[in-house]
Amino acid sequence: MVEVVEAALPDKYENMSEWYSEILDRAEIIDIRYGVKGFVVYRPFGMTIMKNIIKLYEEELEKTGHQPFLFPVVIPEKNLRMEKEHIKGFEGEVFWIEKGGYTPLEERLALRPTSETAIYPIYALWFSSYKELPFKGYQTCAVYRYETKATRPLLRGREFLWIETHNLYFTEKEARDQTIEDAEIFYRVTTEKLGIPFIHLKREEYDKFPGAVDTYAFDTLLPDGRVLQIGTTHYLGTNFTKVFNVQVHDEEGKLVNPHSTCYGIGLSRILASILLVHGDEYGAVLPFEIAPIQVAIIPIYKSGYSNEKIDKYCEKIYSELKGQGFKVVFDNSEKTPGEKYYYYDMRGVPFRIEIGPREVDTNKVTVFRRDIRQRKTIPYEKLIEHIQKEARDILRNLREKAEKRLRENIIEVNSKEELIKTYREHGRKIYKVYFCGRKECADEIKEALDGLETRGKPLNLEGEGPCIWCGKPGHICYLAKAY
Amino acid sequence: MVEVVEAALPDKYENMSEWYSEILDRAEIIDIRYGVKGFVVYRPFGMTIMKNIIKLYEEELEKTGHQPFLFPVVIPEKNLRMEKEHIKGFEGEVFWIEKGGYTPLEERLALRPTSETAIYPIYALWFSSYKELPFKGYQTCAVYRYETKATRPLLRGREFLWIETHNLYFTEKEARDQTIEDAEIFYRVTTEKLGIPFIHLKREEYDKFPGAVDTYAFDTLLPDGRVLQIGTTHYLGTNFTKVFNVQVHDEEGKLVNPHSTCYGIGLSRILASILLVHGDEYGAVLPFEIAPIQVAIIPIYKSGYSNEKIDKYCEKIYSELKGQGFKVVFDNSEKTPGEKYYYYDMRGVPFRIEIGPREVDTNKVTVFRRDIRQRKTIPYEKLIEHIQKEARDILRNLREKAEKRLRENIIEVNSKEELIKTYREHGRKIYKVYFCGRKECADEIKEALDGLETRGKPLNLEGEGPCIWCGKPGHICYLAKAY
Repeated sequence: MVEVVEAALPDKYENMSEWYSEILDRAEIIDIRYGVKGFVVYRPFGMTIMKNIIKLYEEELEKTGHQPFLFPVVIPEKNLRMEKEHIKGFEGEVFWIEKGGYTPLEERLALRPTSETAIYPIYALWFSSYKELPFKGYQTCAVYRYETKATRPLLRGREFLWIETHNLYFTEKEARDQTIEDAEIFYRVTTEKLGIPFIHLKREEYDKFPGAVDTYAFDTLLPDGRVLQIGTTHYLGTNFTKVFNVQVHDEEGKLVNPHSTCYGIGLSRILASILLVHGDEYGAVLPFEIAPIQVAIIPIYKSGYSNEKIDKYCEKIYSELKGQGFKVVFDNSEKTPGEKYYYYDMRGVPFRIEIGPREVDTNKVTVFRRDIRQRKTIPYEKLIEHIQKEARDILRNLREKAEKRLRENIIEVNSKEELIKTYREHGRKIYKVYFCGRKECADEIKEALDGLETRGKPLNLEGEGPCIWCGKPGHICYLAKAY
Repeated sequence: MVEVVEAALPDKYENMSEWYSEILDRAEIIDIRYGVKGFVVYRPFGMTIMKNIIKLYEEELEKTGHQPFLFPVVIPEKNLRMEKEHIKGFEGEVFWIEKGGYTPLEERLALRPTSETAIYPIYALWFSSYKELPFKGYQTCAVYRYETKATRPLLRGREFLWIETHNLYFTEKEARDQTIEDAEIFYRVTTEKLGIPFIHLKREEYDKFPGAVDTYAFDTLLPDGRVLQIGTTHYLGTNFTKVFNVQVHDEEGKLVNPHSTCYGIGLSRILASILLVHGDEYGAVLPFEIAPIQVAIIPIYKSGYSNEKIDKYCEKIYSELKGQGFKVVFDNSEKTPGEKYYYYDMRGVPFRIEIGPREVDTNKVTVFRRDIRQRKTIPYEKLIEHIQKEARDILRNLREKAEKRLRENIIEVNSKEELIKTYREHGRKIYKVYFCGRKECADEIKEALDGLETRGKPLNLEGEGPCIWCGKPGHICYLAKAY
């Protein structure tokens, strides 16, 4: 039985911006009223989701041999300035600390915009032999960038949460392989556990991370047709190890600079993606595994029938589910069932259990599944099995829907005219084209088509052809508008 | 059998400072070479312990109804200035951000020294009715204080990790009760799970948290006889809710300011305490539950006996322990057994399993217990049961030893002369005295006795008597030197 009630939110495909503002507020994900541009407060419900997300990535990182560490939030100015490309990329967007108490500091300290320049000077102290490599380390933290563009909650903040890895390898091959493992790690959590598909791209030369040899990125598609970079991994060559004098002895005792990689998992943006990609006009829709509340039990009292009997039955269900380790609430507050439905729907609670006289008398349970908005009445004995099975099916459903939409929004165009015509007609999509790799062409495309950007070469597609813009030899490239 | 080998470290009671520096380095807890005074790097081994510690406190906080949230690291200057006592207490030790990129900020931003002034303006937006209270929230984060005193790794840093709770209550009684629950939470983790005893004190008036009505603190005893504040909880009255205009409607619709508490769990200092209180001349001694490596299996090869046979037996043990969820390593690296012993001893690995020909041939296992440095050879089938039982016993042993030492270091003195004489004789101890509560006396005692401080009234002791210094009526108070 599909529930038909009035939707609480606008259509996210038609008005993503309003939908998004509403859900951040009504589902109590974050509070945007902190009063400092680009800084938000993670509310308890949002922070609980975030902690559940972090756990999934950290587990996967540890399984693949990454060890946790934590470097200071401040980076001395001279460290930040050591890698030339790096400082060029970040200088304009660093927060500077210049005073402690009433005392001017001897050296300015930057709030970390990313941690390479904090970490490599210490790596220079930690490693001395090729035998100590590979080393894989990660930290979960906030980073700080004084964004000059318009900020948007979770999508583009001046403080955002991420996980960053910083790995060292003796050989280039191992380091390059790490960027592939990083994509696999990202897939195993982002897609397989959170249901968010992404495109795996090699960014164009002019779009690389400052200081990187190669930059690979993971872009997902938002409801308004724009893409969002939710993760990146970089092969840094020996750029940073050279500059920061990280050296190890090789088999013959010769000192060499190891190769390195870094990998950023954009936690704030991933939280935003989960809301935006899976949500609907009733609110958030959360995969079972990360939902702060997985099951909400709601008593439906009826005059002439014992409330106590209903409560007792609900409590039995509560204990049963709790015993299985599920995160469950029994809500017998004074709100009406309708108010409760609204509340749990908005927060993306995967299952709602409704218990009225009929359920009690027949020893059955009515289970409402949030993602497809369907009710099923099942025998009490089947409850656990039902929840477990349907929980898996929620993830499958969310993922399939998202993957289908991503697939359907990639449009292949073969000429400049076709691109312009198709863009005028379809607007924000992902356009598959041939592209020469030159910044001049990218800038012209961006200029001509309201900010359409070259997002790079999809890793799973090989092929060559004339650049859609200038006709010079090119590779396959995706164009999209981006956050 | 007690192992007799050369100790790697000095006696911590005789030279705590050297012992401590050595262990931070050799056990790879932190790296103090970051180059910015008061900032350290948590190395993978240290960070893993830290994460295990955090998990224990967070679980206990969630069990007692606290919800996680996360507020920005920056606090606008005007917020910080709103509570008069508070800003007086922190103004001299705040890091100020004055520039983003090349742009001077419109308003200076402080790095959070504690989060009241970040949180209360938002609480003013979140709550409107007494029915929404109590609210209990916490965040695990780093805080920043520009310490002018000498910094010491983990003990006194300019960046340190902590958990802070910020709770709101409709009534004073509930809020005051929270400070008792906070002490219980602290006990359940710090003492019952980490084996660290502490004294529960009400700080004297002049020693309160800036802005608090009452401050309660948890001090532990370090090997050099100084005490270390590892946690505090404060009843804030309506001081902060008034200033930040946090108001709720009471039953009659009247607007009132709720009462509030805050509670700080000093994670960095707790990590330091675990090392200092439990460690010995062979290195760290970790409670089983937080040890990054709980069991290390070390093969003892013998010429004329098959290495492969030993490895196979070790691998069987490894799988068995792994299957039980233990954190276990099988170290068949090329190092000598002695080098491996040193390595795992230093890191406080609770159990070492040594497997040589005799163990293989008789289907036995030799287990070395780190805390008491004793070996036992047991039948293979008893291994899991043995580890589980002994793991509990390690904690019991560590805790009892620490509690005994704390108890024995509290000396009751009854007159000024006795205090001076005893102090000259015994030096750094905890002195139980009567004290009038006046700052003048406290200052004189501190001056006269090399910095001996009034640490406050022990919560479990009632009694009145003449102040040991001035003879005016007083309460029981502990004096100690402190970090």
